[in-house]
Amino acid sequence: MSGWEPVEGSLATPRGFRAASVASGIKKTTGALDLALIFSEAPQTTAAGVFTTNLAAAAPVHLSRSNLQESRGRARAVVVNSGNANACTGAGGRRVAERTVSAAATLLEVPREQTLVASTGVIGVPLEPELILSQLPALKEKLSVENASSVAQAIMTTDTTPKSYALRSSINGETVHLAGVAKGSGMIHPRLATLLCFITTDALVGPRMFHYVLRAAVEVSFNRISVDGDTSTNDSVIAMANGASGVAVRPGNQSRAWFLAGLTQLCQALARMIARDGEGAKKLVTVDVRGAKSDADAERIARAIANSPLVKTAVAGSDPNWGRILCAAGYSGARFNPEKVDILVNELFLCRKGVDARFDEASARRELDQKELTLRMDLHAGRGSSRIWTCDLTHDYITINASYRT
Amino acid sequence: MSGWEPVEGSLATPRGFRAASVASGIKKTTGALDLALIFSEAPQTTAAGVFTTNLAAAAPVHLSRSNLQESRGRARAVVVNSGNANACTGAGGRRVAERTVSAAATLLEVPREQTLVASTGVIGVPLEPELILSQLPALKEKLSVENASSVAQAIMTTDTTPKSYALRSSINGETVHLAGVAKGSGMIHPRLATLLCFITTDALVGPRMFHYVLRAAVEVSFNRISVDGDTSTNDSVIAMANGASGVAVRPGNQSRAWFLAGLTQLCQALARMIARDGEGAKKLVTVDVRGAKSDADAERIARAIANSPLVKTAVAGSDPNWGRILCAAGYSGARFNPEKVDILVNELFLCRKGVDARFDEASARRELDQKELTLRMDLHAGRGSSRIWTCDLTHDYITINASYRT
Repeated sequence: MSGWEPVEGSLATPRGFRAASVASGIKKTTGALDLALIFSEAPQTTAAGVFTTNLAAAAPVHLSRSNLQESRGRARAVVVNSGNANACTGAGGRRVAERTVSAAATLLEVPREQTLVASTGVIGVPLEPELILSQLPALKEKLSVENASSVAQAIMTTDTTPKSYALRSSINGETVHLAGVAKGSGMIHPRLATLLCFITTDALVGPRMFHYVLRAAVEVSFNRISVDGDTSTNDSVIAMANGASGVAVRPGNQSRAWFLAGLTQLCQALARMIARDGEGAKKLVTVDVRGAKSDADAERIARAIANSPLVKTAVAGSDPNWGRILCAAGYSGARFNPEKVDILVNELFLCRKGVDARFDEASARRELDQKELTLRMDLHAGRGSSRIWTCDLTHDYITINASYRT
Repeated sequence: MSGWEPVEGSLATPRGFRAASVASGIKKTTGALDLALIFSEAPQTTAAGVFTTNLAAAAPVHLSRSNLQESRGRARAVVVNSGNANACTGAGGRRVAERTVSAAATLLEVPREQTLVASTGVIGVPLEPELILSQLPALKEKLSVENASSVAQAIMTTDTTPKSYALRSSINGETVHLAGVAKGSGMIHPRLATLLCFITTDALVGPRMFHYVLRAAVEVSFNRISVDGDTSTNDSVIAMANGASGVAVRPGNQSRAWFLAGLTQLCQALARMIARDGEGAKKLVTVDVRGAKSDADAERIARAIANSPLVKTAVAGSDPNWGRILCAAGYSGARFNPEKVDILVNELFLCRKGVDARFDEASARRELDQKELTLRMDLHAGRGSSRIWTCDLTHDYITINASYRT
């Protein structure tokens, strides 16, 4: 059993998967990819999903969640569109999602309940079903290993780069793959950003265990990009496993830990890509809190810092304004003694025992000018720790969001 | 007993108060007013204070709170500076606050525990005590009714306009005054903005009732400007009453309700000024939620909408993106049926029963272009309601906050 190493690849790097995408016209830009199909050839493909907890969850979220329940954790196809979230669209929106699933299932000759859907884009605007239905035959035609690499692009909205990652590991002489694509952006309160992630693997994983390990991996990756448990109307992480590698992940032996490690590595890599590509973001910021009374306290503090627009604008301006960091910790709800707190950017002390560390201003700016940086806080109150990824808050965020809908 | 009517005035409009301000050099700009003294001539002046709940509360907050306890709700002088918050400044910061109080008390011949302090400005930078101590005699010299009008300016940081308000009412032929000044700004998460407010009145109010009515008024004013109960390191609302009008506010008769109404009107007027003048803000936004299962649910939703950077940037761009408003309600934690929700800007329906209301785009933009506008949500689930004031989120917010400290 070896570790997991990154490889060049796409959702079709795990054997037995094919995918394709087209420009359907949902996005207004001519020729922009906005509709994709992910397909597993193996009749017995297991699947797991983690979806938004938003009360106003979109039609495709409701349908994919109920299909996965009905199929008891099996799925062979996912139809995903960008440009329109099909959220807050009422009964009409539900019919669009249902018609998409039915048409794709018939065309691909798979059970209806093993066909899933996901959408991202503007909220509250009716999604024209013909734009999708008329393209499904072309998408089926184009399904291939080569075309799979276009899916990362087809799911983008305000993302500036496609996000794709793949891993390989060997176990008993067999090679197993994990691959994923994701889209994110909108990073001030990322619970408002739509996160979509699709994962494929040629490992053999039972549905119940798949659900368990996916939840565990999401918890320490996508749920740590300055996000609350709260999520947007459309957030979906969907994973499919077809067993084509011949390697089974079983409970009670080491293979589960090995598979979870790979899945976590994959999700964390994609989560960091999402944070780095937050709307208008120029910097990837890791918030690292330690020495708290408990992990829960550390997480409260890390989230308060990562969500603070005042901290995020200071990072954008490379301003070593550590007082804002301590202030955010102060209102997080965690208990600690402010006069014991150390605050660092990377390895440079800004604040020691709650007061100014008399740091060199130019050095602090140099650290904050880096494209990837870590804000550290040590509370000296216990052994609790937490890590959250976020980004800086820039002018471009305002530009992007002041007129997104139109 | 008449209602309360607005009058031109200052903190010295209530009889028996005097005030003054000077440019001490704490603010870097030459000649910028940054130090003020508010003084009550009457030996028996009651006082009440509401202070930040932030764990990292600044030295002046700790000292003013304990002085008010020690004096059992009496105070005759407040020394306030802008330009430096004296927060996260350790034992040195505490000494500066204590020396300020002792020197002012000696100079003004009032008990030490009846002398209060407040500070606002940058966090974590030592405050030079001599800048304050050397100016106290000049401040005492300048104490007058005329000079009181400069206090509103002396407490400003990133505020663009001074905030001052005064009210008058008659009861049994006697005239009573209420006056206040405030500063705010930093409005994305206003719990991070430093709010300072100083109130004077010539009514006679016992210390216990004064504390009670001040808390009640703050709850429906300053705590409703898209703020959590959480607050910055320095937030302070301090009120003084000297009884010079001869009118006593007593429990158990109508005068308490009358006084509370005036105090609430004063605090709400100042709170709206603060929201309108949020950092970079161009618009005052009232978020009005009704039809919730409970007031608590309505407040959760109103705060989620008012705090959402995506909603606030959409308002800045006059983009009628009602989906973001519904999405914010969806993650607020309140329970409701999204398919019953109406959303309006002013009187124009954007969303009816959870779906697009087919509004006229140009009309919606006209409503959103107004300098003062209301976002309304009706959940049709009960009788709970809540109202929160906030502002739009613009480029200027980023400009102001990217390099505030330096």
